[in-house]
Amino acid sequence: MKIRHVVEAQQFTVPMLMELFERTRRMECVVARGGTLDYQNRIMASLFYQPSTRTRCSFEAAMYRLGGRVVSTEHARIFSSEVQGEQLEDTIRIISGYSDVIVLRHSEVGGAARAAAVSGVPVINAGDGNGGQHPTQALLDLYTIFRERRSLDGLTIAMIGELDIGRTARSLTQLLSKFDRVKLHFVSPPELQMKEDILNELEERDVWYSVESDVERIIGSVDVIYLTQIRPGRMSDQQGHSKFSIGRAELARMKPNAMIMHPLPRTIELDKSVDGDPRAFYFQQDRNGLYVRMALLTMVLDS
Amino acid sequence: MKIRHVVEAQQFTVPMLMELFERTRRMECVVARGGTLDYQNRIMASLFYQPSTRTRCSFEAAMYRLGGRVVSTEHARIFSSEVQGEQLEDTIRIISGYSDVIVLRHSEVGGAARAAAVSGVPVINAGDGNGGQHPTQALLDLYTIFRERRSLDGLTIAMIGELDIGRTARSLTQLLSKFDRVKLHFVSPPELQMKEDILNELEERDVWYSVESDVERIIGSVDVIYLTQIRPGRMSDQQGHSKFSIGRAELARMKPNAMIMHPLPRTIELDKSVDGDPRAFYFQQDRNGLYVRMALLTMVLDS
Amino acid sequence: MKIRHVVEAQQFTVPMLMELFERTRRMECVVARGGTLDYQNRIMASLFYQPSTRTRCSFEAAMYRLGGRVVSTEHARIFSSEVQGEQLEDTIRIISGYSDVIVLRHSEVGGAARAAAVSGVPVINAGDGNGGQHPTQALLDLYTIFRERRSLDGLTIAMIGELDIGRTARSLTQLLSKFDRVKLHFVSPPELQMKEDILNELEERDVWYSVESDVERIIGSVDVIYLTQIRPGRMSDQQGHSKFSIGRAELARMKPNAMIMHPLPRTIELDKSVDGDPRAFYFQQDRNGLYVRMALLTMVLDS
Repeated sequence: MKIRHVVEAQQFTVPMLMELFERTRRMECVVARGGTLDYQNRIMASLFYQPSTRTRCSFEAAMYRLGGRVVSTEHARIFSSEVQGEQLEDTIRIISGYSDVIVLRHSEVGGAARAAAVSGVPVINAGDGNGGQHPTQALLDLYTIFRERRSLDGLTIAMIGELDIGRTARSLTQLLSKFDRVKLHFVSPPELQMKEDILNELEERDVWYSVESDVERIIGSVDVIYLTQIRPGRMSDQQGHSKFSIGRAELARMKPNAMIMHPLPRTIELDKSVDGDPRAFYFQQDRNGLYVRMALLTMVLDS
Repeated sequence: MKIRHVVEAQQFTVPMLMELFERTRRMECVVARGGTLDYQNRIMASLFYQPSTRTRCSFEAAMYRLGGRVVSTEHARIFSSEVQGEQLEDTIRIISGYSDVIVLRHSEVGGAARAAAVSGVPVINAGDGNGGQHPTQALLDLYTIFRERRSLDGLTIAMIGELDIGRTARSLTQLLSKFDRVKLHFVSPPELQMKEDILNELEERDVWYSVESDVERIIGSVDVIYLTQIRPGRMSDQQGHSKFSIGRAELARMKPNAMIMHPLPRTIELDKSVDGDPRAFYFQQDRNGLYVRMALLTMVLDS
Repeated sequence: MKIRHVVEAQQFTVPMLMELFERTRRMECVVARGGTLDYQNRIMASLFYQPSTRTRCSFEAAMYRLGGRVVSTEHARIFSSEVQGEQLEDTIRIISGYSDVIVLRHSEVGGAARAAAVSGVPVINAGDGNGGQHPTQALLDLYTIFRERRSLDGLTIAMIGELDIGRTARSLTQLLSKFDRVKLHFVSPPELQMKEDILNELEERDVWYSVESDVERIIGSVDVIYLTQIRPGRMSDQQGHSKFSIGRAELARMKPNAMIMHPLPRTIELDKSVDGDPRAFYFQQDRNGLYVRMALLTMVLDS
């Protein structure tokens, strides 16, 4: 299966996801046996207009584990002081002359699509804008569930936090909706709830969901808790954060084989007393990102 | 031919330029066949006191295409808060203990020469100060013309923009003046015209030139348009920018085999309607930078 | 001998130091013959919360000379805007999923120990806080003396400068105190003298030392001058800096085989007229850092 650019999570169909996950599994083996693959003459450019140490390091380590090389910029600056609308396109045209694949983190929604439109080499979106896309995060989230449960059909998942602008929760919801009999709970203060566009998509696809305002109500019945942070000041009820948090008390009430996930970084919503619990998957989740990114890089570089 | 340091464009004689261009041609072949050369144990340090994503990435990709390795700093900081005149020299002495070649972008005119004076390894100037040198840009500009026209003799070139402090236009003028029967038009608002020092050099060498204030007068007769930006506020006639710009109207009047060049980034002086024209060479120009830098690296590393 | 983490200089016993120095000697040979070692599938993450071009480049060049790969961040940012006490631990847990060793420069005293406590891979402290540790600097200082004198027993060393908070002088003192018959002079304005904790340690170990306030008194009798800068404003007697500086006059009075060392960067305390003197070891010192760091990397990666 050929992929040219990775711009948004929704571009992946279920068969594409299954191929990606099979490749990802092979990448785990490559790393486990300490080897590399045959990409030693390929160059990845990581072009980050906003710093994101973790995402950038994950992509760069992925390219190195494939045997490749990396040209990196932590804080890509516009080349001159006159910032113009056309600058991103010119930069991409130029950088695609030096590299075999571009990993782009941009500050504006739609930046990755604009880059893909002019690039001579594949572009992978590593996040574009706050309401924008971050497809590799959604893919690694999905892979983490798939790897543990062997199937994505029939699962009940709670998405918790700042769902209105949370791009990881939005993208993951879109991916999950492609699988059978998935049930979703959106747990958030009313003012930060999942937006209409996503809810409408779910209704069109006949996906079951509920809108909740307290984690208590659903904690005992879910297979996956997908927790995200609520930034201070965004919640009108300042004292209400316990309704959207996981700690020792919630652990006691969860299913024994539930999974607790978080895209990190965390603040108060995820207590460190959870870290030692076997249901805590958030560090494994990030580790899976390495394998998923290796697999994606091979898919775009091979095509 | 041995080169120790690359400090300024003028240090290259015509035979040195021809050797460089021959090597550059070979580098194009190396990249085209996806190979690398035998520099896997050599380390390039890229030491940028001012950020320049494009130039830095171009040099680093060049070193990787040779098989080498890169230690990189996007924003070299003075090691301590007490900035002293001697700091650059100490830094270079230290970094030359870790690396086989140093690529330096410095904020002061003469920074590269100061570095070369104390370095234990070759130094390549990647730009030093606004009125200073940026020799690899001038060399890739010249190579782009040479590659297309097979000869630099007898060409008519227009230099357009902020010529008084434009280091790329200044350096390219000096290189072009080494070839036979070259004719130069300097097109700029009077207050931003090419300075006396360069004009005097041209007169000493008997190079034909004219000083112009509107691109209209010369557009139909030139082989190469070398366009550079005019920063807002530097031109006294704020409305006059069309006299120093290229768009659809100018395209219609240019020679069918003329070349349009620009060191990028561009602003309003180069309309994006030009991008699809076969006479637009500005993205090719930057791509050639990769090959020229590979060739220069081999010349200093082999000597 | 196995080392898991490198957190502080004092963790090294004399036998460990001797093994490190023997390995370091072999690394000099590896570099001299232009080779690399078999670490091509190993990834070092350099995670610098404070920029330090020199230390970072030295570690990265060391990893490249071993054949390895580097994922690098010049200015590690906390992943989100909500800086929390737990962030460093989460970052380390995540980065240790991508890499085989982490080189950490942190802004707080104890940062390296906190990182080591949670990391899945070895952590090497590249400096943590102003009163904290910078063990590789102390180790390269010690190696520089050892390499020149073949033994560390019986030497007389003067430590000069801002000794109260100077982490390199503090760590080097602790390492030197492990050897026989070492004599130490601490030369500093009274308000910046070596602190009680270190002086008490020396007394417990029966190490001879004196507290001095003018380099003149000891200049003729020492084997090693270890000079560090005094930052402007920290000395109450603003005119007194000549008492803590080395220039031509001091050179004339020093032993013919004395060594002048400085961790760099320097300001006025070390005149550049000293640079050409055969007793100046401060550039060699930094060069030795490359070999010491290569040796340390092999020790933690092999264990």
